[in-house]
Amino acid sequence: MRGAVIYAPGDVRLEQRPNPTIVHPTDAVIRTVATCVCGSDLWDYRGINPVTEPTPIGHEYVGVVEEVGDQVETIQPGQFVIGSFFASDNTCPNCRNGYPSSCVHREFVGGCQAEYVRVPLADGTLVATPDQPAPELVPSLLALSDVMGTGWYAAAAAEVKPGSTVAVVGDGAVGLCAVIAARELGAQRIIAMSRHEPRQKLALEFGATDIVTERGDDGVARIKDMTDGIGADAVLECVGTGESMLQALRSTRPGGNVGFVGVPHGADIPAEELFYSHVGLRGGPAPVRANLPDLIERTFDGRIQPGKVFDLTLPLDQVGDAYRAMDERRAVKVLLRP
Amino acid sequence: MRGAVIYAPGDVRLEQRPNPTIVHPTDAVIRTVATCVCGSDLWDYRGINPVTEPTPIGHEYVGVVEEVGDQVETIQPGQFVIGSFFASDNTCPNCRNGYPSSCVHREFVGGCQAEYVRVPLADGTLVATPDQPAPELVPSLLALSDVMGTGWYAAAAAEVKPGSTVAVVGDGAVGLCAVIAARELGAQRIIAMSRHEPRQKLALEFGATDIVTERGDDGVARIKDMTDGIGADAVLECVGTGESMLQALRSTRPGGNVGFVGVPHGADIPAEELFYSHVGLRGGPAPVRANLPDLIERTFDGRIQPGKVFDLTLPLDQVGDAYRAMDERRAVKVLLRP
Repeated sequence: MRGAVIYAPGDVRLEQRPNPTIVHPTDAVIRTVATCVCGSDLWDYRGINPVTEPTPIGHEYVGVVEEVGDQVETIQPGQFVIGSFFASDNTCPNCRNGYPSSCVHREFVGGCQAEYVRVPLADGTLVATPDQPAPELVPSLLALSDVMGTGWYAAAAAEVKPGSTVAVVGDGAVGLCAVIAARELGAQRIIAMSRHEPRQKLALEFGATDIVTERGDDGVARIKDMTDGIGADAVLECVGTGESMLQALRSTRPGGNVGFVGVPHGADIPAEELFYSHVGLRGGPAPVRANLPDLIERTFDGRIQPGKVFDLTLPLDQVGDAYRAMDERRAVKVLLRP
Repeated sequence: MRGAVIYAPGDVRLEQRPNPTIVHPTDAVIRTVATCVCGSDLWDYRGINPVTEPTPIGHEYVGVVEEVGDQVETIQPGQFVIGSFFASDNTCPNCRNGYPSSCVHREFVGGCQAEYVRVPLADGTLVATPDQPAPELVPSLLALSDVMGTGWYAAAAAEVKPGSTVAVVGDGAVGLCAVIAARELGAQRIIAMSRHEPRQKLALEFGATDIVTERGDDGVARIKDMTDGIGADAVLECVGTGESMLQALRSTRPGGNVGFVGVPHGADIPAEELFYSHVGLRGGPAPVRANLPDLIERTFDGRIQPGKVFDLTLPLDQVGDAYRAMDERRAVKVLLRP
């Protein structure tokens, strides 16, 4: 089969790779219907995470089940399925507590920018759609495999409630999906922090009520101006740098919450400042699996359309172009069709 | 009047100081009935916080109102009152949100190891008891002015609920009061981490169900052993060092919470570790004022007896001995009588 492999920063190639097979009796193999490039793939592509050897890349996928192992009970060949980038058993204490991305048996599902993917713990990991989806739903369902689930978790971790004032730091696909999540959770005011006009437009379409173009201290000052001087109830940190974390912390009111979903690539969190801020903080790799049933329903109902974050679609053959387009910020997020 | 002044690490003296007077029309002056030495006073006494000039010290007090300013409406001379170490107006947005210790007009109430104290924003800051308390209630009411309110906030910030498994890091007065709070909030299991026998006994008396004597990595391993390998639902960090914070974070299950109330005096919080832990974190100077009415009621009802943390009572004249006893861990907490 064909699959993308990263060799070095800036060097992603489509290659012939062996077809995945059932390794454990709880595995499934799926034929990928759509996959995509994630902001976190860019950490490797930009050399911020080291690339020590050629590595199959990509962790977002929707597809049709091709084959299942002997112990798979609920997932069946022919089903259209969505899964998270972390396989999970859906039965361990952490899964039962709502954190499948901390499953005691979790396993990263990598190499998904490919024609086929092996998914471990298929019964726990994959969720089948109620019907075969119409083609126009596929991008939104693909978004559920990471960015929409991650945006949702940012809002949930920041305890967005009906009536909340929310600020979203980051206008990538996750930040934009976080706007959708804040709207669905009933936020009254949603301030998207973005200086890119096409992303601002999409944020407004997704439910943002205000746009703030300033960043850093100026951005914090604008949020304070807009919130009686005290800060937002909930701030969704969807970037992952030390600067974006400080911007988020300082934009939150005492007693408010920051949900942080960008993988931290920056300074540690200043303990004393966090202490005096009275801000609550929760982050992590989103427990995507936990929210899939709900988000699939919202997608089939047409209440959310996170697939709009894909502003470029390319054949899998052009995976190198997909990375370049996102690296150069010419695209918010690129969908790849095998 | 007589009042304690810190001159340098290890050097606290009782001196003649001018009697406090009404400075602002919203002030009250109270005659101190009891005051005490706080674990956080030891940061100065031990030279960990710099002492740059002779400074009146102490921030815990109960007393009888002596005089009020022209604009004070509810607090009256003769009332027995308790207040927090932060004066607050009780009307600003942060106060209304439950965080009077982030009041936009907050002011530190210092120099309380003295015969009289000036309390700013008296109507917002002070809470009068329903009656003049019996003498045996005074230690518990004094504990409400800081350590009991702080232990309560640790438990609330860590979202202790009925049925929770809770671990308490720190066996000082705050950690011991946090055990009381966890019990009152309905925790099913309360693990006190302590290696000092008298403190273990008091923890058990306050409601702890288990004692863990190990610290650091060994302490974390013990908590994991006791909790299906995943960690406690809520961990109350009542120390304030980098080590105690890591111990707390690593003892908490994914999706659980750390409430941290020891003023951080250590390394910053590792952002990546916090991210992958899925642990929620909230701390800060406790919003003592917000819980005073509830905690006064629990004290008058006899449901809580936080005054038991005072295992030594000295006349204010012996304030230097009080600091020495706490510094050398000969006393958990020393009550001073002017």
